[in-house]
Amino acid sequence: MKVTFQIEGAAPVIIECNLGDNLLELARRGNVAIDAPCSGNGSCGKCRVKLIEGELDSLKSRHVSEEEWEAGWRLSCNSKVLSDCTVFVPDIASAYQSRMKTADLSSPKEIAIFEDCQNHLRESGIHFVNNFRSVVITMAEPTLDDTMPDNERFTWAVQEALGVEKVHIPYTVMVRLASTLREHGFTVCVKGELDGDTFRCMEICGPEDTAIVGCAIDIGTTTVTMVFTDLTSGKLLAKGSSGNGQIRYGADVINRIIEQGRSGGKAKLQNAIIKETLNPIIASLCKSAGISARSILRLSVGSNTTMNHLLLGVDAEPVRMEPYIPSFFAWEGLLAGDLKLPANPLAPVLIAPNIGSYVGGDITAGTLASGIWDKDEMSLFIDLGTNGELVFGNRDFLMSCACSAGPAFEGGDISSGMRATDGAVEACVIDKDTMEPTLEIIGDPGQKVVGICGSGIIDMISELFRCGIINAKGLFVREGRRILRDEHGMGRYVVAFPEESETAREVSLNEVDIDNFIRAKGAIFSAIDTLLQSVDMTPDCIDKVYVAGGIGSGINMHNAVNIGMFPDVELEKFQYIGNSSLTGAYAMVVSDEANAKCAEVAANMTYLELSTYPGYMDSFVAACFLPHTDRSLFPHSVQEM
Amino acid sequence: MKVTFQIEGAAPVIIECNLGDNLLELARRGNVAIDAPCSGNGSCGKCRVKLIEGELDSLKSRHVSEEEWEAGWRLSCNSKVLSDCTVFVPDIASAYQSRMKTADLSSPKEIAIFEDCQNHLRESGIHFVNNFRSVVITMAEPTLDDTMPDNERFTWAVQEALGVEKVHIPYTVMVRLASTLREHGFTVCVKGELDGDTFRCMEICGPEDTAIVGCAIDIGTTTVTMVFTDLTSGKLLAKGSSGNGQIRYGADVINRIIEQGRSGGKAKLQNAIIKETLNPIIASLCKSAGISARSILRLSVGSNTTMNHLLLGVDAEPVRMEPYIPSFFAWEGLLAGDLKLPANPLAPVLIAPNIGSYVGGDITAGTLASGIWDKDEMSLFIDLGTNGELVFGNRDFLMSCACSAGPAFEGGDISSGMRATDGAVEACVIDKDTMEPTLEIIGDPGQKVVGICGSGIIDMISELFRCGIINAKGLFVREGRRILRDEHGMGRYVVAFPEESETAREVSLNEVDIDNFIRAKGAIFSAIDTLLQSVDMTPDCIDKVYVAGGIGSGINMHNAVNIGMFPDVELEKFQYIGNSSLTGAYAMVVSDEANAKCAEVAANMTYLELSTYPGYMDSFVAACFLPHTDRSLFPHSVQEM
Repeated sequence: MKVTFQIEGAAPVIIECNLGDNLLELARRGNVAIDAPCSGNGSCGKCRVKLIEGELDSLKSRHVSEEEWEAGWRLSCNSKVLSDCTVFVPDIASAYQSRMKTADLSSPKEIAIFEDCQNHLRESGIHFVNNFRSVVITMAEPTLDDTMPDNERFTWAVQEALGVEKVHIPYTVMVRLASTLREHGFTVCVKGELDGDTFRCMEICGPEDTAIVGCAIDIGTTTVTMVFTDLTSGKLLAKGSSGNGQIRYGADVINRIIEQGRSGGKAKLQNAIIKETLNPIIASLCKSAGISARSILRLSVGSNTTMNHLLLGVDAEPVRMEPYIPSFFAWEGLLAGDLKLPANPLAPVLIAPNIGSYVGGDITAGTLASGIWDKDEMSLFIDLGTNGELVFGNRDFLMSCACSAGPAFEGGDISSGMRATDGAVEACVIDKDTMEPTLEIIGDPGQKVVGICGSGIIDMISELFRCGIINAKGLFVREGRRILRDEHGMGRYVVAFPEESETAREVSLNEVDIDNFIRAKGAIFSAIDTLLQSVDMTPDCIDKVYVAGGIGSGINMHNAVNIGMFPDVELEKFQYIGNSSLTGAYAMVVSDEANAKCAEVAANMTYLELSTYPGYMDSFVAACFLPHTDRSLFPHSVQEM
Repeated sequence: MKVTFQIEGAAPVIIECNLGDNLLELARRGNVAIDAPCSGNGSCGKCRVKLIEGELDSLKSRHVSEEEWEAGWRLSCNSKVLSDCTVFVPDIASAYQSRMKTADLSSPKEIAIFEDCQNHLRESGIHFVNNFRSVVITMAEPTLDDTMPDNERFTWAVQEALGVEKVHIPYTVMVRLASTLREHGFTVCVKGELDGDTFRCMEICGPEDTAIVGCAIDIGTTTVTMVFTDLTSGKLLAKGSSGNGQIRYGADVINRIIEQGRSGGKAKLQNAIIKETLNPIIASLCKSAGISARSILRLSVGSNTTMNHLLLGVDAEPVRMEPYIPSFFAWEGLLAGDLKLPANPLAPVLIAPNIGSYVGGDITAGTLASGIWDKDEMSLFIDLGTNGELVFGNRDFLMSCACSAGPAFEGGDISSGMRATDGAVEACVIDKDTMEPTLEIIGDPGQKVVGICGSGIIDMISELFRCGIINAKGLFVREGRRILRDEHGMGRYVVAFPEESETAREVSLNEVDIDNFIRAKGAIFSAIDTLLQSVDMTPDCIDKVYVAGGIGSGINMHNAVNIGMFPDVELEKFQYIGNSSLTGAYAMVVSDEANAKCAEVAANMTYLELSTYPGYMDSFVAACFLPHTDRSLFPHSVQEM
């Protein structure tokens, strides 16, 4: 028996199978990209395929309308194969990746973020210098009277040019030495790193190619972002981003670790991030920056503990299972060649150190970039990704923790949820009287609604609550044109009726969605609460709140406080600092001192394990209301009844 | 149009081709192994194939008898394809490789060679120690109260076990750390190298596998030999050898360099030595020594300059072309992983340094092993391989040169020549009166003659000369049953008539063969002569002659002097020292001091370029007689008229 996957925009894949095999499993076996952020438990409704021919045994789902069912749409995760089948697979991965915003480097705002980072790290005494060098050397051509071998001739020229005693020539350079010297008439460019009195060559090329490049990478569970920077000047050369190709193996770290533990899983997850995600971005940035991949002499990675374990192909199962042991917090010695990244194979890959199983290098890099480690004021640093991570403290101490907020901020676990791409509602105001929404939709003017992204959900819940449409438990308490109930009585707010939406499907927020979201915001708030308690402090002590993360870019701080996600402190204390993991990785790749400082910050940071901390669960339960069971904590929260 | 190669003992290979394509070229294109030591110029007659079907345009050749021609035998190098063809290809390469003698390690003589080397190097103050270590460590299993990550746990255990400050964990170890620790209950064996206060891990495995192994390799142009040794004790673990798989691209270094310069040539020559030759020997020795390839922590290579350039995949063309510039003499930094050798990828590969384009690491390793660098006596070291290389001197100075003796010593350029394998005449006595030969034939009792190997040719020419059958110019001057002449009057001595030979083909030595051989021995003698002259010395000054090389194993020193190949010194001054390149490589891989000494010996050795040395050509011409134009140089040479 066999299934033919007709993949949108790609060659079909045919998989041999047995009667009753699960369609999503088959797709994964054949490396067919189907978006399944809930990892196949039927809850997210993203793994839709269309049956063209043959027979499937599929469960009905609220994610598939009657018309869609008639047209052949099924959820692959709950479909079993009954005969030879042909199914159509929408190119979700590539559609998702191409929808990602690619930052415009000419945008002064983009450049300003990195310049800001440089500036305030410089103020903290960090120099933006490194030991990478690029130098053009000329040597005498050999003759019958001067028969010195190539490597000695070359060594002498490098010694003279750089004033070093020793020159280390690796195999990758040696193997091309004879031909490169002769091709360029014994005038060549050499690139490498100074190490005391030794110059470690990394590259030999023609004298016109003198670029030496650093590549800083933020590997998020959902999104990967990268910048290229000139290692000499620290100037930005290119920037790009894409979805994390591992998304098809689960939206969260737990599902990916489970997937990694299956047969061939290490290579599968590693390929998904390296071959499918990083390599294409690097190739595209090389092109736009006009440099060769071999000119990339150092890379840095800000990523959570699971992401860097999956990147390395290291067994992440012990991270997930009690007693939750990563292979490493800090680890030195990784080279681009180890991971077969398209860069100079000898380029060191700096991994920002982890400080616990669920507080990783993205947070240490972010903390470095936030500068809170060098301040007198008490700062709270919040990174809202697929997980929520927090750091609190100042120059004297730093305390961190993580909470599993789940994928709700990114549209996962939400029936009409989506990531912050074209068609997503990213902001919303609701008229208290008419209960009609005014939406801000990502995309070109005229873009119709596809779904709701994290910041849109925050606004919507805040507005529904403010307008008294939902109560503190998130249940609908008013009636109206946009407020519908299903046969079980579950209420929902219709953001877009089918005729108003891009996809002709209703876009709405129901009580289960709101409950999911309240749990997520409750997890964040109770984590902040517990972290403060652990150092005997209260929200009053907070001088500054830095909010980071892709999810945060459209966030309305007022609304986030209104629903009890963030503590009720003065709005001017909030500052959105963008992708702090990437900014930190940028500092690390350019500056040896920033890299050392990041290790120091990580080594001095205390990790608080919330799941075993007394009182955390009580605090979480209390936070699962709008804004909170203890209304006095949110004097500024508004509900107009 | 296409040619089907029916390869003896292998799957057929079908190659698309055009009318008139050369058959040997097609075979090479299809990676079909056809022995062609003369690189396709029709002179060696080794590239025979049998036409089964179709039409070839082939030249007749003295190497193919009329009966053979009728049966379909052709030389592939001079055959053009006229139609779809099927040809039978004898499995020369594999037959040749399997016929190679694999030394028996239980043989006390084999072991004695390496023990001798150790002993006399020890007497010269060289210690047989290195910094490689293997240690079994146990660490506490992690618990909820002890959540240190794996790499810190591991580092602490190594620091404690070895008393080092730093532990470097490479990617290859990190990637298996979590699973290996858990698989073996946190008791594992660690292997690596001490480097000051740092231990550089190279391998992690179960506690039962503590072996650490060195692999010493002699890469000859014709033959590759290898030993495995215990890096702790220096004991031999296994030994093996095989033909150099590059043989199909030419018997000598020049033809191979030409082949490397063709499109895809670098990879082709590198694959022939690494994938086809070294990897199978390593695999077989791993099996016989009962060790895993990852336990090989260091390798060493003794090889001539061209061989080590081809091994590395470095452009060897500048070695061949004026002004004859190698990429390197000495070069450090090669790792097994660079060459994808089946060993620990981080294992250093020590290349014995070259000292000129035609005096390579095999000679410096051999010189190290010979011990002449630490002696008062004047010693002459002769390595007779496909090229002839010489070193003369003592502890005060060392002078070296190379001469292109050509492949005659190994049976190349000789009509009935062959390598020293089964069926080769390796020694011979001729009765002066009857002119009948008494032969020693390699192989089991009853083995009939196939051809004549180098030592057999020396004996035969010496005997023909002693018996007055040939004159000083190598021309036949007596008549008899075994002395025949062809239609042009060229004489030959029939060693075996067709009915006496294994192959039913006549085995004989003709005047062209003898002339070729006289040129080869003349090259050796005149090189010795010139080398001595260059330091104002004469053969009287020689206290000791060390003869090394695979070719030398059956050599009769008396006969070699009798024909004027070696200077006429007392026979007791000659000592055969076997494969000195391998013995030297063995010392290097076990002993850091031997490795350093080899570099020192190489750096202090002077290279004499014979081709431009005044008087060399005259000396060569004078030496192209039996034994020499100046008979007084050979008072002991015998010609009984």
